[in-house]
Amino acid sequence: MSNKEQNYREFKEEMRVIADLGHTQSVLSWDQETYMPDKGISFRSQQLGTLSTIAQEKYVADDIKLCAQSVSESYGEGDDEKINADLYLKERARQEKLSPAFVGRSTEVTSAARHAWQQAKHDDDFRAFAPHLEKVVVLLRERARLIDEARDPYEVLLSEFDEGASIEQIDMIFADLKKELLPLYQKTQEAPTINDDFLYEGVYDKQKQLDVIHKVTSLIGYDFDRGRVDLVEHPFCTTFSPDDVRITTRLKEDDLTFGLWSSIHEAGHALYEQGMRSDQYGMPLGAAAGMSIHESQSRLWENIVGHSLDFVERILPDLQKSFPEQLGGLSGMDVFKAINKVKPWPIRIESDELTYHLHILIRYEIERDLIGGMLAIEDVPEVWNAKYKDYLGIDIKSDREGVLQDVHWSLGCMGYFPTYSLGSLYGAQFMEYAYKSVSGLEDDLKCGRYDTLLKWLQENIHEHGQRYVSNDLCRHVTGNELSVAPFVTYLTSKLKNIYNI
Amino acid sequence: MSNKEQNYREFKEEMRVIADLGHTQSVLSWDQETYMPDKGISFRSQQLGTLSTIAQEKYVADDIKLCAQSVSESYGEGDDEKINADLYLKERARQEKLSPAFVGRSTEVTSAARHAWQQAKHDDDFRAFAPHLEKVVVLLRERARLIDEARDPYEVLLSEFDEGASIEQIDMIFADLKKELLPLYQKTQEAPTINDDFLYEGVYDKQKQLDVIHKVTSLIGYDFDRGRVDLVEHPFCTTFSPDDVRITTRLKEDDLTFGLWSSIHEAGHALYEQGMRSDQYGMPLGAAAGMSIHESQSRLWENIVGHSLDFVERILPDLQKSFPEQLGGLSGMDVFKAINKVKPWPIRIESDELTYHLHILIRYEIERDLIGGMLAIEDVPEVWNAKYKDYLGIDIKSDREGVLQDVHWSLGCMGYFPTYSLGSLYGAQFMEYAYKSVSGLEDDLKCGRYDTLLKWLQENIHEHGQRYVSNDLCRHVTGNELSVAPFVTYLTSKLKNIYNI
Repeated sequence: MSNKEQNYREFKEEMRVIADLGHTQSVLSWDQETYMPDKGISFRSQQLGTLSTIAQEKYVADDIKLCAQSVSESYGEGDDEKINADLYLKERARQEKLSPAFVGRSTEVTSAARHAWQQAKHDDDFRAFAPHLEKVVVLLRERARLIDEARDPYEVLLSEFDEGASIEQIDMIFADLKKELLPLYQKTQEAPTINDDFLYEGVYDKQKQLDVIHKVTSLIGYDFDRGRVDLVEHPFCTTFSPDDVRITTRLKEDDLTFGLWSSIHEAGHALYEQGMRSDQYGMPLGAAAGMSIHESQSRLWENIVGHSLDFVERILPDLQKSFPEQLGGLSGMDVFKAINKVKPWPIRIESDELTYHLHILIRYEIERDLIGGMLAIEDVPEVWNAKYKDYLGIDIKSDREGVLQDVHWSLGCMGYFPTYSLGSLYGAQFMEYAYKSVSGLEDDLKCGRYDTLLKWLQENIHEHGQRYVSNDLCRHVTGNELSVAPFVTYLTSKLKNIYNI
Repeated sequence: MSNKEQNYREFKEEMRVIADLGHTQSVLSWDQETYMPDKGISFRSQQLGTLSTIAQEKYVADDIKLCAQSVSESYGEGDDEKINADLYLKERARQEKLSPAFVGRSTEVTSAARHAWQQAKHDDDFRAFAPHLEKVVVLLRERARLIDEARDPYEVLLSEFDEGASIEQIDMIFADLKKELLPLYQKTQEAPTINDDFLYEGVYDKQKQLDVIHKVTSLIGYDFDRGRVDLVEHPFCTTFSPDDVRITTRLKEDDLTFGLWSSIHEAGHALYEQGMRSDQYGMPLGAAAGMSIHESQSRLWENIVGHSLDFVERILPDLQKSFPEQLGGLSGMDVFKAINKVKPWPIRIESDELTYHLHILIRYEIERDLIGGMLAIEDVPEVWNAKYKDYLGIDIKSDREGVLQDVHWSLGCMGYFPTYSLGSLYGAQFMEYAYKSVSGLEDDLKCGRYDTLLKWLQENIHEHGQRYVSNDLCRHVTGNELSVAPFVTYLTSKLKNIYNI
């Protein structure tokens, strides 16, 4: 073995150990959310802290840095080995700008904020949360300054979730979205209303819902030999290895849609993670390319595939067998229309495919202005409610259903929300290109052969890992810059069909 | 803080980290047995290996040794700090005698043996397992020699599971047991037979069994806020912290007894682990005092409490409500007799409280002679079958139901089996003493107030951790050396009642 191969082998071995520790933390966190008894929390937190500390020590150790530097110098441009080493060195450099003291302080501020948020939401009292939000904003401004003083602070935060995104791009995209979606929204609200009552009537037995979820997520290619589904309070997808990617869901007895389609969403994330190269375990080339691309996969399967008429017609017989009372006499078109109904609603995670982006837009405008110092903490609820009235025509009745509904800010995540919208746009643009370039794709989807699409996504997106940042990947795959056009075209066509507008 | 306090704090902190890593491995192993999808096994094994390596490196690091030595020198005899440091140094010295190369080779031999055993058991073919058993025996002889050349090799292996046990003690105890149990067994087999058919008739619905298991294990004090029960192939109890001790069970639809009483057994182990001092987390004083004492707790709750007439009468109404068809017209005495029925049976884990020790005796005699070189591998099945005929009057029909039934030898565990019998004896001796010294205990057990007994066990056994080795603990608690008398008295009296002998 040559010297450079030996170096790479050592680098890879160190990265494997760090990944093992990271995935182990994921197992502990998954268990905490699914099965852990109540009183286990205190020692569990301690154990998670221990694993995190050991992993971090290994990540910033001198030997792995030297190894990676040698690899970077001895391999050529475009070699996987050099790409992995360079991506590691870049991420390490970013992390080194945040001192252990700053990281420790961040954990303190966000732990307290998370706790206060939960209580404030319960008590419907934004003022109790306000001092914590203030601290979070100050902390995040400092974080951005530490990472890159020269760059717009909000953009720095954004780039932690989506390396390719810029303020300029986001502003342009949201301006375009606003211009397109607001009139479309108006038209749907003026059209005759759609009946979706049956989705929320009677009792949707939870075990039957779970059986349907198994069947439907298997149908789109989620591999239960390398995954499983469990029940939690807040659904998520988690990865223990490419061969063990788990989804979670929450079931409501009075709502068919939430459990099923949020499971398809999580399965979309899981398909991405199951599609990573096993031989790149622990390496940047074996890891997801940021949150926007992750969301492109989940939202593509949930919405573009999962909310299509073909898909609904395919799964309806199973749904009708499980829930004959509610769904017995309905056509695929009835259900298709109901699950795509556009309606004003205060809660983001329960909103439809169109208004969803108005929810995100509101959050983006507020958090950008908070970080930029253009908006005072105490004015946030008022601004929030005014924007909901303005964009969606909704009167927000309480902070609980308004500004306190999401956990993100309390966790110190600002710059995260835009990745949801970017995900939808990337998904639509990937899909538009796939339709053009994959022969027979439209027929295959009509006939329930979802593996054609999955294989294309694996080869064109999943298997690249972090080789490209989001906008480079988009250019590489579709030949074009990200634009709102594919999404707007797709959604307009669908809603025209539904609302006859 | 003084220098010695500072040293102890550092020692404790290192031990905490090592314990966190150990308990994390337990979470991963538990998940592997309960919920992990099939294909997750390869990366999971790798992750377990990584955690084990890191924990071992930390355990044998120089700094923790120096710390422990300072603690040992600066604290006085009998101080908890010194006890913890000395126990650590002793265990470390033992482990240091086994080189990493030897440990690696051991893992290879037992991994292969475990795999071969599973296949051989499936194929009912001892000869396929024999070469692996040969390697295990050679390995264990070497292990014993490495640890203590001067001592009887089998005794060295035994002491790894029960620090206090000696060959002399075991030989004496099994001689006494044999003398007492064989005639008692004879008498039960000559008495009119007992009807236990209803335990194995009809369908015992698994969900109902699980509900009963929850209720019954809660009744004896197993705390579900700090534990839970899940389904597995081979039941076990596992500890993630004193506040998260989980049991597992296997349910058979055609057998009420296996799931329920094996759960009480595992809950007995769990009560011991839940009874450890939280402030001694990671320390020898916060860990179990070997396998014999562990089994004393599980077998005490499973048999002495769980198989008593009072207990059966207490839980029977719930059982009858769940399984009216099979148990509807029966009295407590009927069920009590049935679950205590003494019968010749080839399988250890399905055997009754009396013959169980004859099963253990057979294994003990064989493994002692294997390690001692008095028995050749190829003769083991013949010797096994002859002893089953001799002691139990059973004709063993196949290796699968004979010498291949247990996993232990394939795992490299010889010297483990005796701890099951020692456990029963310790349990009976603790119980005899508790009856004498705890006022009102007999009444409390009659009335279902199991907390009186649990509290006594916590204060007299659990909270000592590893302060005493098994036989010292017995002397400390009961004032006497371990003897078979309490067990024989207890069992004889019970069987006299049942069989009118």
